[in-house]
Amino acid sequence: MALSTMIQTHLPPALSGGGMNRISAVYAHQGVASDTKLNRGARRLAESLTTLLNLNIEPLCSRKNLQYSNWDSFDDEKHNTPTTSPKEMIADKWRELHGSSDWEKLLDPLHPWLRREIVKYGEFAQATYNAFDFDSFSEYCGSCRYNRNKLFEKLGLSKNGYKVTKYIYAMSAIEMPQWLERSRLMDTWSKDSNWMGYVAVSDDEETRRIGRRDIVVAWRGTVAPSEWYEDFQRNLEPIGIGDAKVEHGFLSIYTSKNEFTRYNKSSASEQVMKEVTKLVQFYQGQGEEVSLTITGHSLGGALALLNAYEAAVNFPGLAVSVVSFGAPRVGNSAFRAELDDLGVKTLRVVVKQDLVPRMPGIVFNESLQRFDDITGTLEWVYTHVGAELKLDVSSSPYLKRGFNPLGFHSLETYLHLVDGYLSAESAFRSSARRDVTLVNKACDMLVDELRIPQCWYQLANKGLVCNEHGRWVKPRREPEDMPSPTGEQAHDLSLRIEMQESYKCCMQAKNLAIC
Amino acid sequence: MALSTMIQTHLPPALSGGGMNRISAVYAHQGVASDTKLNRGARRLAESLTTLLNLNIEPLCSRKNLQYSNWDSFDDEKHNTPTTSPKEMIADKWRELHGSSDWEKLLDPLHPWLRREIVKYGEFAQATYNAFDFDSFSEYCGSCRYNRNKLFEKLGLSKNGYKVTKYIYAMSAIEMPQWLERSRLMDTWSKDSNWMGYVAVSDDEETRRIGRRDIVVAWRGTVAPSEWYEDFQRNLEPIGIGDAKVEHGFLSIYTSKNEFTRYNKSSASEQVMKEVTKLVQFYQGQGEEVSLTITGHSLGGALALLNAYEAAVNFPGLAVSVVSFGAPRVGNSAFRAELDDLGVKTLRVVVKQDLVPRMPGIVFNESLQRFDDITGTLEWVYTHVGAELKLDVSSSPYLKRGFNPLGFHSLETYLHLVDGYLSAESAFRSSARRDVTLVNKACDMLVDELRIPQCWYQLANKGLVCNEHGRWVKPRREPEDMPSPTGEQAHDLSLRIEMQESYKCCMQAKNLAIC
Repeated sequence: MALSTMIQTHLPPALSGGGMNRISAVYAHQGVASDTKLNRGARRLAESLTTLLNLNIEPLCSRKNLQYSNWDSFDDEKHNTPTTSPKEMIADKWRELHGSSDWEKLLDPLHPWLRREIVKYGEFAQATYNAFDFDSFSEYCGSCRYNRNKLFEKLGLSKNGYKVTKYIYAMSAIEMPQWLERSRLMDTWSKDSNWMGYVAVSDDEETRRIGRRDIVVAWRGTVAPSEWYEDFQRNLEPIGIGDAKVEHGFLSIYTSKNEFTRYNKSSASEQVMKEVTKLVQFYQGQGEEVSLTITGHSLGGALALLNAYEAAVNFPGLAVSVVSFGAPRVGNSAFRAELDDLGVKTLRVVVKQDLVPRMPGIVFNESLQRFDDITGTLEWVYTHVGAELKLDVSSSPYLKRGFNPLGFHSLETYLHLVDGYLSAESAFRSSARRDVTLVNKACDMLVDELRIPQCWYQLANKGLVCNEHGRWVKPRREPEDMPSPTGEQAHDLSLRIEMQESYKCCMQAKNLAIC
Repeated sequence: MALSTMIQTHLPPALSGGGMNRISAVYAHQGVASDTKLNRGARRLAESLTTLLNLNIEPLCSRKNLQYSNWDSFDDEKHNTPTTSPKEMIADKWRELHGSSDWEKLLDPLHPWLRREIVKYGEFAQATYNAFDFDSFSEYCGSCRYNRNKLFEKLGLSKNGYKVTKYIYAMSAIEMPQWLERSRLMDTWSKDSNWMGYVAVSDDEETRRIGRRDIVVAWRGTVAPSEWYEDFQRNLEPIGIGDAKVEHGFLSIYTSKNEFTRYNKSSASEQVMKEVTKLVQFYQGQGEEVSLTITGHSLGGALALLNAYEAAVNFPGLAVSVVSFGAPRVGNSAFRAELDDLGVKTLRVVVKQDLVPRMPGIVFNESLQRFDDITGTLEWVYTHVGAELKLDVSSSPYLKRGFNPLGFHSLETYLHLVDGYLSAESAFRSSARRDVTLVNKACDMLVDELRIPQCWYQLANKGLVCNEHGRWVKPRREPEDMPSPTGEQAHDLSLRIEMQESYKCCMQAKNLAIC
């Protein structure tokens, strides 16, 4: 929706007339789980758009990898069988996998261990969507549906060997309220804040496998980057003490706080830095090697970069890397230069057809310079940072063709394409084993032959349940899953005790070893 | 969607221009579970439309019955408590409740026993939607999700004291395929047929309560009466041997058959008449008084009338009544006269704001004669039959105001309004106990203060389940719930045996009594 609005705003008058109203309606429709086909007029417009934006959208007939008559056998052989692949010991190669050599010779062809790592972090980012309460009639709208101890178990992510230690809440400044989700109710858990992500840390087994205690921060993005563009036209704002500048809105989400709120007496930045500091100090104090990996999709990818910048400034010498998915540009070239100087390693995973990584500056930095006079100018030019892993929707025989901005931007589409990626020149990996069905969770990207409903990730009866009297009611959340600032404080205490216990055990083990 | 198309087709050119495209988009949007508000232009158009159609849509501010600040206490006191009200012995009044005196003095004020009966039959009609497989990616799309023995139990309707004896399937003639649901797949349970309803019969306890063995036929309708209007412009078709004529499309659904299909070697008409014949003969043979009550919503209401006509012709002397909800006109005045002569009693429940009961002939029979020259003429004029119970959306303090054709037409809206109806002049019944939440099952009609999500009636993950390997798959249906023509035959046999056993018991009991 927002994307089409954005495109429309920046099209020449001849293209942005009545016809665009129709294409907007079509996108709106797609976004809310309908299967209306692009009508002929809209299709023609979409084609013009893709040409303008240099998007390479392959026609339907040229898919070669899979015979359609084989979908059924595909289903039985591959679709219902285990996904878990062996977990190699990657300790020796870990620094390289996390960008110590700027991913030289690891991306094309893609190193299989790196593929696994990218998917792992991508799933951490996806968790922020899967557990988010989007229900605008819920008093918990904008919170996480589970408490931190249950999150990975509920989402089937326990296998990754991490434990969530802290939830992060963010608010946006008053002048830009539309970036976060908001309940329609008055008496909600919070009027101002959204659950924006979490901090997790590798358990002992995973720590052995990867050769260090890995702290992860996962940032939630926005499914539809609504109204971003408007904000991109503001000035960039300074960050740090140099010339680095970053986009106003992203920085606002990251740094806003208000003492009269329940969850943002401290900002997202302060919350995450406090937790990371605690974990780094604790594990370094135990003599462990520690790393920080920050991940996020879309807006979450932008926040990951701001977070990495701040962490690198605060922890000189700490290995800080970012794995972002479909992230927009965040700052100016001085911001990029400072990140480089700080040693922040960023791997940007980008789908060629996704418009969001071309933002801000879609009409400035790409081939559409001629629209400059229509759209006005920005005072600085936004710049991407780090290394790029470029994926192509048309590489996957499982994905539909056709212009589908929501589908192109979906994180599950990204993870599917990473799973199938061998190299820039190769066909989709025939041994890819990740569950293809996941792609259609919140969009309509899978070919019809797979028989997977679009936008299927949904609660039974939108969370209503039939009570013992036969009435449909919204059950109260389990007390343990209700967001609570005091719960967070209680947790801080329990974590401290847990850490102290772990430290004592560790010391005892060392003493024993010395003995 | 279809309604707005219909309206648009029959508006003067000045109204059906660019603005209508916007209103169509808005309706399309509403239909697929979005909460986009009518924009100003569309709202203005909706207002013009409602004025043209003499719809009385009350402004928001005039609701008086409930204080909004009381919604929460409403929730606790009423919303979560039992629904079941005492079941009176209505045997003595049953003939009257079923129209023997054309519902004289029973409708205004509405007799409480009649209210209960209307809701009972309405819930039988609603069952045809609740259990219907709408998933176009399902190989069972267009069938019932449960077998007949589980249907009422699964839908919480066992309390009504009926047992389903037969499922009815219908196909539509080739020239009008858009009236039924169709799977996108090639290998489906049926390419031609839809589950279109069922026959049920009262159990012994309910039979005692109502004083006769009541056979019910419930017909499924269409949620959105898509493309109806086009068909209405065809000629009416003769039915019976007199001058009676009925709408082509309805008759086609009721009578189409094809020996090359699995489920419609016989037509819906033949299936239902065979089953009813069997039941009538059996129970009359046991000396019981037997009645036939036919119900349906929308298209289902039209089929109910055709079915009643045929049954009355075939069973002179049998009490045949129809309780229809939001049904369109079906035939000409000769059809009405014949129904009267046959003694068919029809109670049409109609929501004042619903457009469907004004079809066909919305622009001919109402106040819009002046559009006649734009839209062409019909050869006959469609006529409503029977008595009317007229409900008004604006009577309920729980319902939103504003133009909402889907919501006005929804059967659950009807049942809510019946539950709250006292008389034409009275306010909504304060003691109404039916679960208000049900209204929003498939539309967005409840006021926001109730906090009920719109269109909430949905399967978890659209029926996908996570298998033991962590993959999302579509489970096969339980063998017993797979639609199967041989299953239907097997059932015929088992029913026959069951009836014979019942007959033997009955005879033995009589003999014992004689002894």
